[in-house]
Amino acid sequence: MRHPRLLVLAIAAALASSATADPALESRFDAQIDPAEMGGWMKTMAAEPNHVGSPHNKTNAELTLKQFREWGWDAKIETFEVLYPTPLEIGLELLGDSPFKATLTERPVPGDETSSRTAGELPAYVAFQGDGDVTAPLVYLNYGMPDDYKALERMGVDVKGKIVIARYGQGWRGLKPQLAQEHGAVGCIIYSDPRDDGYAVNGTYPDGPARPEQGFQRGSVAMMPTFPGDPLTPGVAATASAKRLPREKAPTILKIPVLPISYGDAKHFLAALGGHVTPPEWQGGLGITYRVGGSEDARAHLKVKSEWSLKTIHNVVATLKGAEHPDQWVLRGNHRDGWVFGASDPLSGHIVMMAEAKAIGALAKTGWKPARTLVYLSWDAEEPMLLGSTEWAEQHAKELQQKAVAYVNTDGNGRGFLEVAGSHSLQSFVRAVARDVKDPQTGVSVDERARAAALVSADPSPRARQLAKAAAEGKDLPLDPLGSGSDFSSFVHHLGIASLNVSFGGEGESGGVYHSAYDTWEHHSRFVDPGFAYAGALAKTTGRMVLRLADEDLPVMRYTPVADTVAEYVDELQKLADTKREAQQQQAKAIAAGAYRLADDPTLSRGEPTPLKPVPYFSFAPLQNALQRLKTSAAAYDAALAAKGAALPASTRAELVALAARNEQTLLQEPGLPGGRGWYLNMLYAPGRLTGYGAKTLPGVREAIEDERWADVETYTALSARALEMYARGLEEGVRVMGR
Amino acid sequence: MRHPRLLVLAIAAALASSATADPALESRFDAQIDPAEMGGWMKTMAAEPNHVGSPHNKTNAELTLKQFREWGWDAKIETFEVLYPTPLEIGLELLGDSPFKATLTERPVPGDETSSRTAGELPAYVAFQGDGDVTAPLVYLNYGMPDDYKALERMGVDVKGKIVIARYGQGWRGLKPQLAQEHGAVGCIIYSDPRDDGYAVNGTYPDGPARPEQGFQRGSVAMMPTFPGDPLTPGVAATASAKRLPREKAPTILKIPVLPISYGDAKHFLAALGGHVTPPEWQGGLGITYRVGGSEDARAHLKVKSEWSLKTIHNVVATLKGAEHPDQWVLRGNHRDGWVFGASDPLSGHIVMMAEAKAIGALAKTGWKPARTLVYLSWDAEEPMLLGSTEWAEQHAKELQQKAVAYVNTDGNGRGFLEVAGSHSLQSFVRAVARDVKDPQTGVSVDERARAAALVSADPSPRARQLAKAAAEGKDLPLDPLGSGSDFSSFVHHLGIASLNVSFGGEGESGGVYHSAYDTWEHHSRFVDPGFAYAGALAKTTGRMVLRLADEDLPVMRYTPVADTVAEYVDELQKLADTKREAQQQQAKAIAAGAYRLADDPTLSRGEPTPLKPVPYFSFAPLQNALQRLKTSAAAYDAALAAKGAALPASTRAELVALAARNEQTLLQEPGLPGGRGWYLNMLYAPGRLTGYGAKTLPGVREAIEDERWADVETYTALSARALEMYARGLEEGVRVMGR
Repeated sequence: MRHPRLLVLAIAAALASSATADPALESRFDAQIDPAEMGGWMKTMAAEPNHVGSPHNKTNAELTLKQFREWGWDAKIETFEVLYPTPLEIGLELLGDSPFKATLTERPVPGDETSSRTAGELPAYVAFQGDGDVTAPLVYLNYGMPDDYKALERMGVDVKGKIVIARYGQGWRGLKPQLAQEHGAVGCIIYSDPRDDGYAVNGTYPDGPARPEQGFQRGSVAMMPTFPGDPLTPGVAATASAKRLPREKAPTILKIPVLPISYGDAKHFLAALGGHVTPPEWQGGLGITYRVGGSEDARAHLKVKSEWSLKTIHNVVATLKGAEHPDQWVLRGNHRDGWVFGASDPLSGHIVMMAEAKAIGALAKTGWKPARTLVYLSWDAEEPMLLGSTEWAEQHAKELQQKAVAYVNTDGNGRGFLEVAGSHSLQSFVRAVARDVKDPQTGVSVDERARAAALVSADPSPRARQLAKAAAEGKDLPLDPLGSGSDFSSFVHHLGIASLNVSFGGEGESGGVYHSAYDTWEHHSRFVDPGFAYAGALAKTTGRMVLRLADEDLPVMRYTPVADTVAEYVDELQKLADTKREAQQQQAKAIAAGAYRLADDPTLSRGEPTPLKPVPYFSFAPLQNALQRLKTSAAAYDAALAAKGAALPASTRAELVALAARNEQTLLQEPGLPGGRGWYLNMLYAPGRLTGYGAKTLPGVREAIEDERWADVETYTALSARALEMYARGLEEGVRVMGR
Repeated sequence: MRHPRLLVLAIAAALASSATADPALESRFDAQIDPAEMGGWMKTMAAEPNHVGSPHNKTNAELTLKQFREWGWDAKIETFEVLYPTPLEIGLELLGDSPFKATLTERPVPGDETSSRTAGELPAYVAFQGDGDVTAPLVYLNYGMPDDYKALERMGVDVKGKIVIARYGQGWRGLKPQLAQEHGAVGCIIYSDPRDDGYAVNGTYPDGPARPEQGFQRGSVAMMPTFPGDPLTPGVAATASAKRLPREKAPTILKIPVLPISYGDAKHFLAALGGHVTPPEWQGGLGITYRVGGSEDARAHLKVKSEWSLKTIHNVVATLKGAEHPDQWVLRGNHRDGWVFGASDPLSGHIVMMAEAKAIGALAKTGWKPARTLVYLSWDAEEPMLLGSTEWAEQHAKELQQKAVAYVNTDGNGRGFLEVAGSHSLQSFVRAVARDVKDPQTGVSVDERARAAALVSADPSPRARQLAKAAAEGKDLPLDPLGSGSDFSSFVHHLGIASLNVSFGGEGESGGVYHSAYDTWEHHSRFVDPGFAYAGALAKTTGRMVLRLADEDLPVMRYTPVADTVAEYVDELQKLADTKREAQQQQAKAIAAGAYRLADDPTLSRGEPTPLKPVPYFSFAPLQNALQRLKTSAAAYDAALAAKGAALPASTRAELVALAARNEQTLLQEPGLPGGRGWYLNMLYAPGRLTGYGAKTLPGVREAIEDERWADVETYTALSARALEMYARGLEEGVRVMGR
């Protein structure tokens, strides 16, 4: 049990963490935030297709550069030469009695003038799939996730030599073709089902915000869980002179062709399928009986050919030098490239970053200077696979690990409730900021509004229950761990820099036009964030984060939340192993008793399930011991900082900030994650091998249990424990420094 | 804790309960069961519409009478004069810009010759609604259940003066218009949504077994939870001379007009609705965005007028006199009336009863006679509201309570797994029978197959988990409690006669044609029970039940399962009160904190929820004390019967059987359930006020908690405890009799 007196001090410390904010400065900052101006920037930047390599993306980079300079920043463009494929030929047709050629284009919709500017727009396409021209029977596979393959196997159907058609959802886009490829499929079609993303969600655009029947979702299918960034230069920057892998050997590029299609197109293919009627949970919203297919009756012809040359990408890097600690950097980024017009994704976040830069520039012109150096980053080529941020982080890795205090990321922004994922050492800092920003719709703080939503949520998921409990008990809302899907990944997972990803969401709708040609200024300003009120609220939130990270002379990190969070994760690992062990034991008994065979409907010719692997007992003792040390050191650190921090000499305070920043790097442990995923060095957070954007915590251990790599459970228990021991040692060092 | 030695004896007793079955007799019985002949009976009886009052229903009664007589039974027809409305005029149209007139008819389908015999067939109609001719805006209300009204209220919409359109499912048909009427609606439309009952379930008829777009579900909407049977003669038989209520005062007849429609018709009405997009869980499978409606834009005109004269119904009652105990009766029933052709419902069960009667008749012709009297009952008018069985049970109430040993019911039968609901005193008897019947598809016993399915089921519901646990531990599969929806109701709920309802199901599909014109011999023999194999298996199951109930000279009842089951129910009541109390406390805190208001999307103009009523603490002590006595007496009874039963003199054994039969009547307590539901006298089982077919156990207490009638919690805790004390006293009396 934690020491009661230390606990009280720790709470006091958490509450005190906003004490050194400068309300007058922040008011002056707020006064500069102009939602109307932000909307204007979006309208300009989203006026033409702005995907990687498009002329308008370049124009936007130059505009950003020019603006930053005007606002008083030292700005430049940094380029990299990355592999980035573009479509040469695409085609998809249904063969047989009712042949159909997929349209693969998104026609303009009335009332959305932007959607009519189709010149130069990318068609239905996903980046980093394989070239191919295949004709084969189609198999419908629900969401195309691992459990779907198990269900398919029990129906006696496989995907070998076939083209898989799977719906978007329940797992990251790229996993669907990757799993299909691993199972021997020759091609993959991914479509947006109207039950998940169309008329069953809301009225369809332009009548409502939801995906219209011709809308499809572009994206990247590079194998993100292996590593992000340029597929040819893993771990190093894609400079002109970098040593590159041959494309055929690049491990993150798929071999099979893949196309994303609309539900208007998909309906023709799915209606043609025969064979087994699917399990009920596989039925989507298309108004047909979904069947598995797999026979020669319904064959498709899929063709994709890409142009594979290197392309130049353009990051805009803007700096405002710190007056007191120029070698302590506060990083702030948002990407700039879209898939088509990119209004919600990414410009709704990019305009927030711009508004902050303008406001901070204005403050700087009046005499105030940040104590630490601010580095604002307008990333290119996030969409194809975090290319801009990854190459930049790899290029500047050493300097960043020496100087960066934290990285604050935004991406698309919505309306509603503050949603923050990030390093748990920043959890109490986030709350302190959130208490000081007013929600535009209700007038209470964005912290209070998020807590209200958590409190009354009827969502039964464990995460929602965790939030509800925290809200009911008046504790900080726990941060979500960082998975992937935006530019924070290199900073937190590869460099060990404390990171945050911040947005508003939960009201309004941007999902229905995600990665489509209807993600326009018109859609965003009508359905997502009318009046750009939440763009303003986000600028006031992330702006405050930047100002406080820049100016507070003591660390903003608090460690009791880290210890509490890790304690939950360790507990989850034990439950995971126990649950898996029980499931295997129950299945073994049921198989031995012939229960699956007896329970099967013999007319559906299903077989017994594949036997699960027996689960041994694991020793989590190294992790438990490390956790114990972390709990003690975290409580001691937070208490010492609260008690003594303010009285410390300036040099000690600066030393503590540097120490806290670098301490996050103790979470990195060579050789990183196994299975070719060594780029992911962080032992506490990673994107899941089979979840993609979704995080896995204590990933080395958790995924070893999930994937039944028993030797890795031991190896990564030791490595993760080592990371936590080193992390705790850093806190003990901090306590010593404060006691000097 | 239960006494360990008694526990062992009780288990031995349970296992011994089939010891006195006569395997040779049962083999000879089995040899008479001929699935092909059963299929032939169905084909004949389902050849024409056979709803109440139709010529073919009368023909079927006469056929049944003739067959029973041929098979050696003493058979007769008993008639009653019941209120039974038939449609004079029905009509439904959508007004406005895209007017549409609902078709309200089911066209014949290719390959199903029966479906072309439409002469005399009932159109879209539900029995016991009100006459009416109304024009009003439409409101879509999901399943039309209480929670749906709460959600609607938060959207700022009400149904007062409107016509409600709700989908079938999640609650009994009749509750939807009843709740609509209580909330001030002027009419109600119920439709089958394809997500629950149509193409999203399976291929549609005739390609597959699921409901085609023109198929609709007829049924009764009389207020069954108040009382079943003739609405004009509650509690007494509807003989020609019975005193009758005026129709306007009959409490089970609705006031508002109601029509059931197909999804082909419903689509036009739902597509016309404007207003709020519904919550996601309200979206069905129609390929449209479901909206709530409620405005003048989408108005409907609904008209229903019925002919309300009394009609004659015909029960066939067949008796085979007991050789040893003619005044101990074993009752066996199945209804005969359908909604159209009635192949699956009810004839698939009726042919089972016929096969048993023929086989038993054949046995009787060879010299064997049942020890007790068998009474076989072919009920008329079950569909409109259990009219045939209820009036007969009311007519013969006194004699039945003196003589009946048990009632065994069947209704529609399917394919797959043995499913039994019933009085828990018969639980170990059911298992003993199920062990001796072979599953047609796998060759193991129907007990073993049901256990295999329970063991491997992935269904997370509490009931499925309870079954899985019992299967894993090798215990008897717990019986489901009896709710309503078939002819057992009068026997178990009103007369206190131990009852069972038995069927096979879980494979094949009859749901898709339920109460439609496609419930035909063609559909049943193709999709539900090809070869009538499970008709045969059911006859062997229920036939064994009848033979053993007739011939076993000791009681087949065992009481440890009753005590275990009641213990679970008492535990559930406590949890229910606690959960409800916590929910209120949490809601009150959230309201006080303004959390609902703050969490609301202000653009959707929702309000705060209606405050829940605070839940006091209740004393369940009377129930707990009664339960304790029941546990002790049940263990003692089962142990004594196992130890001494076989050695008792014949007269004592007969006395024990009579005592056990009558002991079930101790569960009946005047004044029965509150709120005008006094016909339901059983304090252990009842159909739920708001669940209909679904049972409520310890209903007086459970529903008092659910409905927030706190005084009734106390009253019915006392009444239920009294029932259990009397039940236990009966077991103590049995132990004394055995000890004489």
